Amino acid sequence: MQKHRVIIIGGGPGGYETAIRLSQYGIDVAVLEGERIGGICLNWGCIPTKTLVKSAELFSEMKDSESFGLPAVEVNLDYSKVWDRKNKIVEQLVSGIEYLFRKRKIPVIKEFARSIRKEGDDYIISTDQAEYTADYIIVATGSGPRSLPGIEIDEQDILSSTGILKLDQLPKSLAVVGGGVIGCEFASIFASFGVEVQIIEFLPRIIALEDEEISKRLTMALKKAGIKIQTGVAVQSVTKTTEGMELSLSNESKLTVDKVLLSVGRTPSNNITWQGLELETDRGAIQINQLMQTNLPRVYAIGDVTAKLQLAHTASKQGLIAAADIKNKIENKQEHIEPLIYENIPRCTFTHPEIGSVGLTEQEARDKYGEILTGRFPFTANGKAMSMSNTFGFVKTIARADNQQLVGMHIIGPQAAELIAQGGILISMKANVSDLESIVFAHPTLSEALKEALEDLSGLSIHKI
Amino acid sequence: MQKHRVIIIGGGPGGYETAIRLSQYGIDVAVLEGERIGGICLNWGCIPTKTLVKSAELFSEMKDSESFGLPAVEVNLDYSKVWDRKNKIVEQLVSGIEYLFRKRKIPVIKEFARSIRKEGDDYIISTDQAEYTADYIIVATGSGPRSLPGIEIDEQDILSSTGILKLDQLPKSLAVVGGGVIGCEFASIFASFGVEVQIIEFLPRIIALEDEEISKRLTMALKKAGIKIQTGVAVQSVTKTTEGMELSLSNESKLTVDKVLLSVGRTPSNNITWQGLELETDRGAIQINQLMQTNLPRVYAIGDVTAKLQLAHTASKQGLIAAADIKNKIENKQEHIEPLIYENIPRCTFTHPEIGSVGLTEQEARDKYGEILTGRFPFTANGKAMSMSNTFGFVKTIARADNQQLVGMHIIGPQAAELIAQGGILISMKANVSDLESIVFAHPTLSEALKEALEDLSGLSIHKI
Repeated sequence: MQKHRVIIIGGGPGGYETAIRLSQYGIDVAVLEGERIGGICLNWGCIPTKTLVKSAELFSEMKDSESFGLPAVEVNLDYSKVWDRKNKIVEQLVSGIEYLFRKRKIPVIKEFARSIRKEGDDYIISTDQAEYTADYIIVATGSGPRSLPGIEIDEQDILSSTGILKLDQLPKSLAVVGGGVIGCEFASIFASFGVEVQIIEFLPRIIALEDEEISKRLTMALKKAGIKIQTGVAVQSVTKTTEGMELSLSNESKLTVDKVLLSVGRTPSNNITWQGLELETDRGAIQINQLMQTNLPRVYAIGDVTAKLQLAHTASKQGLIAAADIKNKIENKQEHIEPLIYENIPRCTFTHPEIGSVGLTEQEARDKYGEILTGRFPFTANGKAMSMSNTFGFVKTIARADNQQLVGMHIIGPQAAELIAQGGILISMKANVSDLESIVFAHPTLSEALKEALEDLSGLSIHKI
Repeated sequence: MQKHRVIIIGGGPGGYETAIRLSQYGIDVAVLEGERIGGICLNWGCIPTKTLVKSAELFSEMKDSESFGLPAVEVNLDYSKVWDRKNKIVEQLVSGIEYLFRKRKIPVIKEFARSIRKEGDDYIISTDQAEYTADYIIVATGSGPRSLPGIEIDEQDILSSTGILKLDQLPKSLAVVGGGVIGCEFASIFASFGVEVQIIEFLPRIIALEDEEISKRLTMALKKAGIKIQTGVAVQSVTKTTEGMELSLSNESKLTVDKVLLSVGRTPSNNITWQGLELETDRGAIQINQLMQTNLPRVYAIGDVTAKLQLAHTASKQGLIAAADIKNKIENKQEHIEPLIYENIPRCTFTHPEIGSVGLTEQEARDKYGEILTGRFPFTANGKAMSMSNTFGFVKTIARADNQQLVGMHIIGPQAAELIAQGGILISMKANVSDLESIVFAHPTLSEALKEALEDLSGLSIHKI
């Protein structure tokens, strides 16, 4: 029976990065992954959608090229080529990870874990083909798309985010059921490509977890891009008719579209049978402590299966913490492991315009701290944004009133997903307003809008009107 | 005689921002500026060049649109429209600043200061039209382009960076004399537009103040863009012939071009006569202390005229420090003023690819600290860069070996000018390698390349091959 010090179940961004880190520590590790390494993120999520975003952005800019001094040209879109480009980039990236594994001699076992039992101190993992023994297990099995009662994802007409990426041609019309991050990203991409898009959201607003002002501004932008948005509306049924897919909505209306994207959240993929072992879960999510330990000795869980903030970089960071703890245990050390503060994890939405946020929303900060300070600065007053003709959006900052510590930053606008990293650093390093005095921001940059939104916490933004 | 508490001489980014800050403090202030507010930066520098950069980037991307699934189109360039766009954006931005001034009722006196004398405790500033009295003076007169012996800027054929922005059509060929930041930016822009460009640099490498690896990589990129680069070569004379402008070089060769851009640095504009007052200067640069005070009581100097790091954001930050000191003096307070550490000021070069750097170069760090750590990460291994098909370049990090404090970051590649702000924050907040453990970077972003270059300081970059 193949034996490894650590076996990681699942080769997504949490699993594969953790395997590499363990290998860097000199710890024997193998990954059990029935599909290709990279998980949903690399193969069917973050990366493929960002290749589409790039094509969509260029397509939009080209349609407006005359305003940049580049006389109007007829711009065409060949979605099959956009799609091919996506596949090539995904292939390139996944091959790159496979290369890293070969180079480090980390075995990737192309099998799915089915059950786990314990023999003495050893864990035995069974797949359909074989059994593997490990001292330590890291469960990184991810999540799958959630369905709605009576609305089953068939990946033909009712698609998940994975299924929609398998389409090699554009539908004429698309209903996006669920206006969260994934739903809004696809709505934005497909609308840029000329698809008629409608978003139906059950909650009172889209991207309901984001700060309310950001959510409002995105609604405005998506509507301007021709996307119809209905909020506070439930989808009661989806039926296939000769006209297409007919959605019956809770407001008594109906709509008919070519395809439906169901993006109402993801549920933990927790399908392994634990034989004679009681793994603690809560609504399918494996329960973990600060070191990613489950209730079972030497069994860790990371990523979407823990149902914390379901983001690739959450999984990776959780994995690095698990790896550090395993190293401590194996080497019998007590090296300090910095705990993960989930609310300090930046979140990005690659709509047009982009959104980046970190820390608390205004409402959360008020609930937690009572009195707070807020700052705002619009990209319309930022020189770099003006030079790019890309001034839609703003930066919002939130600080505690008592000690002026920055606790939230929310950006909608150009390059928001990169800019928010500055907020992530400031909040993680517990910066307060006076720390900002030692920092100089370069001119002319979009980052100056962050500076001014930070200065605005003290009423000292220079360019705010 | 008009009297103000503070008179700022020069309405560039240093002068105008300082005026607004003083007004925010409730201190009476006026600005003496013979030309339009905004100085070189807004009218003839940072902002107009960035509008050209935007058009140049879009032009390049459109020529390659097929690779993004957008079938080839004939792309045309109408430089006069590119130029018009520049003028409109500059006008809009300058009008915006003028509006801020009107709203705050800060007088802008459209006259040049010619001489300054003292009567009792009052400073009297004379212009060609009138005299003005002030308790405090901030000199923010900026800088002008440097000529070379025997090569005089005529703004017809031998242009400064201001003169080249006045051209409403493209030359066929351009010699850029001086491969510093300004020279390389114009070389990159004009080459993108199809102009034959040559850079002649006296020093052994272009952008000689940047880290050597960055300089090498930019050389590679500019050459790939068709720019000819000669280094270690002096221009001995420029003569007008019937063929164009003929340059005689120190390597015995000659070259003939349509236009010459002379970008060999800028000298402090320090032309005011100080009557009966001994203002301390060094080679034309006004000497200042950490609070931007000159040797004369209540006379401050900020920006290019002080010949520190000649960047708009240096001037602005210096100005805010002067403003805070003036506030302390007027209000008889001792509020702490954070000193400006010039080496922590980020520097951006808007070539294609962009460069962003902050802190020490590798050589400077070795000279200062002896043993150092360096980290590197290429954009070729970054998922977001791959999804953008924009993977040229890398991130380099430098830390002290003794306490692992980050002391330098250098980026060449996509969005480097925004990404470097993260380095600016980390270095200003004195972050060391272990502080990084508390920070999560979002996926998929270019910022992850910074994370990996930081991890690489400890040999723990996940994706580095």
